[in-house]
Amino acid sequence: MYRTHTCGELRMEQVGQEVTLAGWIQTVRKFGSINFFDLRDRYGITQLLFGENLNPKLDAQPLGREFVVQVTGVVTERSSKNKNIPTGDIEITVTDFKVLNAAKTPPFTIQDDTDGGDELRMKYRFLDLRRNIVRQNLELRYQVGRAARNYLHSAGFIDVETPFLINSTPEGARDFVVPSRMNPNQFYGLPQSPQTFKQLLMVSGYDRYYQIVKCFRDEDLRADRQPEFTQIDCEMSFVEQEDILSTFEHMLKHIFMEIKGIEFTEAFPRMTWAEAMEFYGNDKPDIRFEMKLVNLNDTVKAKGFKVFDDAELVVAVNAKGCSEYTRKQLDELTEWVKRPQIGMSGLVYVKYNTDGSLKSSVDKFFDEEQLKLWAQQCKAEPGDLILVLAGKEERTRKAASELRLEMGERLGLRNKNEFKPLWVVDFPLFEYAEEENRWVARHHPFTSPKPEHISLMDDPSQYGNILANAYDIVLNGTEVGGGSIRIFQRDLQQKMFAALGMSKEEAERKFGFLLGAFEYGAPPHGGIAFGFDRLCSLLGGSESIRDFIAFPKNNSGRDVMLDAPSEIDQAQLNELRISLVKE
Amino acid sequence: MYRTHTCGELRMEQVGQEVTLAGWIQTVRKFGSINFFDLRDRYGITQLLFGENLNPKLDAQPLGREFVVQVTGVVTERSSKNKNIPTGDIEITVTDFKVLNAAKTPPFTIQDDTDGGDELRMKYRFLDLRRNIVRQNLELRYQVGRAARNYLHSAGFIDVETPFLINSTPEGARDFVVPSRMNPNQFYGLPQSPQTFKQLLMVSGYDRYYQIVKCFRDEDLRADRQPEFTQIDCEMSFVEQEDILSTFEHMLKHIFMEIKGIEFTEAFPRMTWAEAMEFYGNDKPDIRFEMKLVNLNDTVKAKGFKVFDDAELVVAVNAKGCSEYTRKQLDELTEWVKRPQIGMSGLVYVKYNTDGSLKSSVDKFFDEEQLKLWAQQCKAEPGDLILVLAGKEERTRKAASELRLEMGERLGLRNKNEFKPLWVVDFPLFEYAEEENRWVARHHPFTSPKPEHISLMDDPSQYGNILANAYDIVLNGTEVGGGSIRIFQRDLQQKMFAALGMSKEEAERKFGFLLGAFEYGAPPHGGIAFGFDRLCSLLGGSESIRDFIAFPKNNSGRDVMLDAPSEIDQAQLNELRISLVKE
Repeated sequence: MYRTHTCGELRMEQVGQEVTLAGWIQTVRKFGSINFFDLRDRYGITQLLFGENLNPKLDAQPLGREFVVQVTGVVTERSSKNKNIPTGDIEITVTDFKVLNAAKTPPFTIQDDTDGGDELRMKYRFLDLRRNIVRQNLELRYQVGRAARNYLHSAGFIDVETPFLINSTPEGARDFVVPSRMNPNQFYGLPQSPQTFKQLLMVSGYDRYYQIVKCFRDEDLRADRQPEFTQIDCEMSFVEQEDILSTFEHMLKHIFMEIKGIEFTEAFPRMTWAEAMEFYGNDKPDIRFEMKLVNLNDTVKAKGFKVFDDAELVVAVNAKGCSEYTRKQLDELTEWVKRPQIGMSGLVYVKYNTDGSLKSSVDKFFDEEQLKLWAQQCKAEPGDLILVLAGKEERTRKAASELRLEMGERLGLRNKNEFKPLWVVDFPLFEYAEEENRWVARHHPFTSPKPEHISLMDDPSQYGNILANAYDIVLNGTEVGGGSIRIFQRDLQQKMFAALGMSKEEAERKFGFLLGAFEYGAPPHGGIAFGFDRLCSLLGGSESIRDFIAFPKNNSGRDVMLDAPSEIDQAQLNELRISLVKE
Repeated sequence: MYRTHTCGELRMEQVGQEVTLAGWIQTVRKFGSINFFDLRDRYGITQLLFGENLNPKLDAQPLGREFVVQVTGVVTERSSKNKNIPTGDIEITVTDFKVLNAAKTPPFTIQDDTDGGDELRMKYRFLDLRRNIVRQNLELRYQVGRAARNYLHSAGFIDVETPFLINSTPEGARDFVVPSRMNPNQFYGLPQSPQTFKQLLMVSGYDRYYQIVKCFRDEDLRADRQPEFTQIDCEMSFVEQEDILSTFEHMLKHIFMEIKGIEFTEAFPRMTWAEAMEFYGNDKPDIRFEMKLVNLNDTVKAKGFKVFDDAELVVAVNAKGCSEYTRKQLDELTEWVKRPQIGMSGLVYVKYNTDGSLKSSVDKFFDEEQLKLWAQQCKAEPGDLILVLAGKEERTRKAASELRLEMGERLGLRNKNEFKPLWVVDFPLFEYAEEENRWVARHHPFTSPKPEHISLMDDPSQYGNILANAYDIVLNGTEVGGGSIRIFQRDLQQKMFAALGMSKEEAERKFGFLLGAFEYGAPPHGGIAFGFDRLCSLLGGSESIRDFIAFPKNNSGRDVMLDAPSEIDQAQLNELRISLVKE
């Protein structure tokens, strides 16, 4: 037995007991011939007191930070108690100790505020993971997963494992592939999601399926994407959209209660995709604050201001209480909207001064009476600042959305400890991919049109008007989950593949097993998948999913600790019957 | 709402209620103008009664087996009750129905005793999964996983996800590899187990880790191996072997109680590897029955029988109560041991007749007095049959082990509803791989020698004598888990790699991250991994793990339903900078 107790459990009740602890030396403090050490493990910190009689042994084998030791001693009441930690009332008067393993000085400090940069901490991820703050993230992740599992169990879902070595059927993102040695010149694909398998399980009558499962996408990585990520993947049979929304709203409420102690008594609000685009400029509104976009097209056009007259969209954001913005601040904001990521050519503002007067950057074209109209439309009051963008519709809407978020941020309206979930519903079924010159599925090719729109599937000119039984769950402006009611009829699924430009042969080759399954009694079904990494990061109050993944990859898809990926032997390539194509 | 109730929940209490059910038509029976249907879903079967007034509608849209329907009707008490099913007291007098989806006639019957062959059922796995017997297997799997998770949670373990895209470091089995598009000419490897990651998590202070996780091995498939399989993977810090055995014995006891209602009040028996080899001829003894192997070398040699005199090993199995075996049966058994899989050149027998006389196939060389000695050694009694094999030591021991199992089978001593777990401990650290002409790690290169044998690591001539702190858990003659106390000191780990013939550079390239981690305060640690598929199949009373995997692969590593793996586009190959090497 290496220990009788952990470093987090001793209290006044154990005073007088002889105990043995094991852990890491967190800090060393010396007062004359007395040494104080903090001993750390996953469960807490306990103070050790080495009296002078142990000095010879300490000198013979010095103890430094992060050494692993085993100590035996007596639990003693502390003279000066530390109220900040649960073990702060006691210390261990050490009578014997043993170094279990020495430690080099870590390349960065093992503390919440570490001095280690990102790259260094990733290289020594095993040390980074020692930091309290990182361990708490992974513990939170575990608790979120457990809460989800417990809820889903009580709701009758069963966890069924689906395969990882499947076929590559790229539609949307790229697949990772795995050459097969036993089937030369053939490849497995790693799943982007278990989508078709969970649908097959519904055809098999499993009724309620879930899985917390790794998925893979070989995409160019953005700041917060990982080539492998985890989903809470769910599917239900004999359900309509309402059944799914209700079931998973309950799951999220359960998670919020278990993890954050937050009780949502009301139903989550819902918004159509069209409303989200109109009032927030994107399909994942952050509704922690209002500041909706206001379309000014009808108010501002044909007044002789060419910028507005030429624009497809003129849209305003009312920055509450910002009328005192200085010239310098407004210039800086103008530069902000002109950055390439935002891409606007300028910013129009109207100050609604506290004295009731209105002052704009376009006074030449609009008199106070007209500006009053704008203010009315924006529900602006004295003290507010109206920010107006104009240009091509899509870009302008996107820019207005970014501007709204930026102003919300500056005004402190995006509190990471406030949680505002939102269902976005009624997504369009298709979107047009200009580069590919074809319609693509906005959610995925298995999403059902709304029943009343199924007839439009026969008329390509109507594709843009078809709404889907698809929904996203958005938390604080981030999509944390999405799903749909699925197509479960072979003929409709074939129409869908055809609409996406897939030939009959291609559809049969890629998805023949699913089309086949639909002929043998497929029930109506639908589901949802949650981005588990993302959900955890939001619940943990962090921007970055990497903080919630034990061994994440960098933006080039590399694990810098392992130095993976790496070259493999020629013998291995030979066995796989592949060769490298050099630059 | 598609249904008010499931097909498994209606009882007498609901008689008189109007309900709506949805599910699959299991059977159709017609009595005059009255139609009876059984409606099935995951939860059960409910009988439907269609009166003659519904006949026109039924005729217009006929219902066949496996059609998906929604029916509305009134719960009625049955005149002739079916005591075999929980809903057998009632039926639904249908007032309205709707066909949700039609079904072609399934290629095999959806029943426990199906008429479908293996290949056909795998091709239509989504239909095979509908069979009760298969669904129950997957439900059992879910319950086993849940029981394991609950136990591990209560024991303070946390589930941490480890990466799937890592480096290929083949040592033992072959890795599957994944070409990296972003890092041209480099490859990820899919993990054979999360071994090094769980050790790093111990270095990180996570103390108790677990994961139920997919693992991958690109090996030639035997009947009961899958290229992807699932482990319950666990690791603990500050533990000795005893702590691990105790923790996971409790986990298994919890699972047995939850899943089978079996309470193990006694500790699981333990056996050393040396004892297992001597008395059972293999390292995973089936201890549901005795019939231990008896070494007769000292008794039978130098008596003029060349077969025995030339043999390295003469070993006997006492087949209790088999003295009445006929000539024909003995001939058949002799043929059995001569099959290439067993590889013996013959079988010697001694009948201990019920009248006390002894009759053997080697009466020419051994008189009754001598045979009595054999019988004594084998603890044989009148009525028994002693079977004796002789030859090269390893092959003969293996053959005797197979013969013992075969006789146990024939004697009905291997009851699949009886569960006999066994710890096998004290495995040798190394075994000599003749083909490679080097020592290999019997468990894996991270396993620690027993402390008292560490000094032998400096002397290659002693490698064969080093015992490991390694253990297997065996259930009914099948290894269901295994693990070890790990090396946690850099220098010992380096010695281990060197002993396996790895150069310093190779060790550094493949496992530098782990060797590095050991320098920063690695705690003593150890762990275990259970073969989850195998554990479930044993608990479910099946020989085959495929019956407990939703979408298994065949012996060529193919998913015959998906027809995976498959060819990929040249464009995809180009992006990955690889080309195919054709035959």
